[in-house]
Amino acid sequence: MVKELHSDVSDKAAGIDVTDGFEPFAQRNDIFTRAFWDPAVRCARSDAFFASYRMEATPRRGDGFGQRDFALRNASWLISDVMTDRFADQGRREGFQAPISADTPVAPVALKVTDSNEMSREIKKVARFFKADLCGITGVDSRWHYSTRIDTRDLSDAPNNLPEGITSVIVLGHEMDADLVDTYPAATAGAATGRAYSQEAATVMQLAAYIRNLGYEAVPSMNDTALVIPYALQAGLGEYARNQMVITPQFGPRLRFSKIFTSLPLAHDSPKPQGVRAFCDICTKCAEACPVKALPFGPPEVGGTNISALKGVRKWTSDAEKCFGFWAKLASDCAICLRVCPFNRDFRKWHHRLWLRLALSPLRRVALWFDRGRGGRKKPGAWWSAP
Amino acid sequence: MVKELHSDVSDKAAGIDVTDGFEPFAQRNDIFTRAFWDPAVRCARSDAFFASYRMEATPRRGDGFGQRDFALRNASWLISDVMTDRFADQGRREGFQAPISADTPVAPVALKVTDSNEMSREIKKVARFFKADLCGITGVDSRWHYSTRIDTRDLSDAPNNLPEGITSVIVLGHEMDADLVDTYPAATAGAATGRAYSQEAATVMQLAAYIRNLGYEAVPSMNDTALVIPYALQAGLGEYARNQMVITPQFGPRLRFSKIFTSLPLAHDSPKPQGVRAFCDICTKCAEACPVKALPFGPPEVGGTNISALKGVRKWTSDAEKCFGFWAKLASDCAICLRVCPFNRDFRKWHHRLWLRLALSPLRRVALWFDRGRGGRKKPGAWWSAP
Repeated sequence: MVKELHSDVSDKAAGIDVTDGFEPFAQRNDIFTRAFWDPAVRCARSDAFFASYRMEATPRRGDGFGQRDFALRNASWLISDVMTDRFADQGRREGFQAPISADTPVAPVALKVTDSNEMSREIKKVARFFKADLCGITGVDSRWHYSTRIDTRDLSDAPNNLPEGITSVIVLGHEMDADLVDTYPAATAGAATGRAYSQEAATVMQLAAYIRNLGYEAVPSMNDTALVIPYALQAGLGEYARNQMVITPQFGPRLRFSKIFTSLPLAHDSPKPQGVRAFCDICTKCAEACPVKALPFGPPEVGGTNISALKGVRKWTSDAEKCFGFWAKLASDCAICLRVCPFNRDFRKWHHRLWLRLALSPLRRVALWFDRGRGGRKKPGAWWSAP
Repeated sequence: MVKELHSDVSDKAAGIDVTDGFEPFAQRNDIFTRAFWDPAVRCARSDAFFASYRMEATPRRGDGFGQRDFALRNASWLISDVMTDRFADQGRREGFQAPISADTPVAPVALKVTDSNEMSREIKKVARFFKADLCGITGVDSRWHYSTRIDTRDLSDAPNNLPEGITSVIVLGHEMDADLVDTYPAATAGAATGRAYSQEAATVMQLAAYIRNLGYEAVPSMNDTALVIPYALQAGLGEYARNQMVITPQFGPRLRFSKIFTSLPLAHDSPKPQGVRAFCDICTKCAEACPVKALPFGPPEVGGTNISALKGVRKWTSDAEKCFGFWAKLASDCAICLRVCPFNRDFRKWHHRLWLRLALSPLRRVALWFDRGRGGRKKPGAWWSAP
């Protein structure tokens, strides 16, 4: 645990609604970790799901689930896998159940930082150079840090420590390939996830090494150590949506997030809520499209149906058991809720930016109407044969 | 060694001029390996050069050589470094003095390949998905394979083996950052090199894993195992130039190459010489700009001034000792010859494509005249402060 720290950003501005019943999350309760110890989740199918990612191929019937589809998906994870496995013998599944170990020491002489605004600008430039698609910076908020992490050797709780002096969190966004996201559910689509994780690993490691070379602490982190979604909200990268994702003005929900905990003096960003919440209030496309109805149709609520839900936060919460059960059945990750989201657009294009303005205005129902017929599944075979 | 194989591409088409005195290259004679065993190359400065890449920072005076410049350069190499170090205890400096070890087995069931043209198209698509900027495919040519590689534990010669059944070489191009290349010589510029190597490592490993998942051998390779330049020429990616680089129609010389040796049935590309040789015949910008005059001013010749030259090939050959001596002095890589090359342009832009047509036409002297004043060094400080 980091020492008790609270963000300099107001929860209201970030769209976060914490109640008295709040409890920090224990990593052992996330659905992927439960798949190893909890008989309510673990089954032959969930074991086969994990095994399929490290087997040479897992072909079966159906477009998007053949040998080349699994071959692509598994290859796409490779760089993430290499980093994840490096200290497995110490019980550290890095990037998932432990932060990524530093490869470079903190330089003995620290660069003098006189202007934290300028340093934040520079960090964002270096983040872009290392292929991050988005970068926001916020303060440490210990509420989002896992109360304990997991030692993967025996699935026992392990202390979730960070070095002394961490004050800021750099949150990075990594775009997922739009054409492959359009093919969910398919093993082919899983390559969009895997490639983003591999890129995440490379980017956080390189940016953290840069900061360490400047003489400051920097801990590269993917899914480990803390919840990234509230940090992304506090860092002003986007707004929380019904499909459990952060909607960004650049890629909608079509990206993954990673983070770096650092002692480098940095100016912090602010949330800029635009109205995603009001749109999600009238849109249930993700909840309707979910084959196992794991997403909520109603307003945000406190709690959830099982221990994988974050306690004491009023928000849209999925039924993680139903969700992961479907992944295990597919032997691949599902993100239909991402594919069908009306915000799943490329806002670098002007006509999508125009739609976004409409969606965030009182005319949001018109925007929703314009979205009809979008978000259908594209055939994985068509991805392969496209030039 | 691979068994004696010769390319299906004629040397003439590829612009390769091999004479009777040809000898395969022994890796111990490359200038970087010599820097560890040859007293003619190794000195306190060359040791300091290598050490500077793995130290937390090596600041000294001058724009482009401060703490943040070295911090960026060294961080940019990180992914390549991690891969390079994995089997160092076995004497394998992977990607440089040994191919990269496979992380995935060859799938027991091989995908049936009925159309090698279609498979080549698919491989190029997957290469692009894994962020290769160029991809060409050619046959194995054992002339370019090192006669021996180096065991980095004791610098002894080690056998340079590939698995049985390798028939094709997939050659990948990785663009270097144009803005940073403009700052050579500078530690900042070295980040363009390091980031490209880190990307190379990720891309060749992922693409090779994909092929292995299809049930075929695939060996990911960076600078190790074989000379990549003749392979890039045979694979039709570009033409050889006075500055020792391959000029491509997409990025000119501003890229690095990696390769994969594979048994996957693939159709091969052909060289398409456009006239770079004739342009280099009238242009000596690189040779003039070289601070230590390591590049030749005259026509291609057989041989070179020292044992780092490839024997028995008529070509432009640098004086590797002078070249590397300057790198050691800088404590960073130099590529002034890349920066000043008239072909160092972004040919995705129409006006540069227009210039290219002129440069490859009988009006090449006009193109050279239009190039005057280009290629000057941009200040590293300006790179940092640019938005």
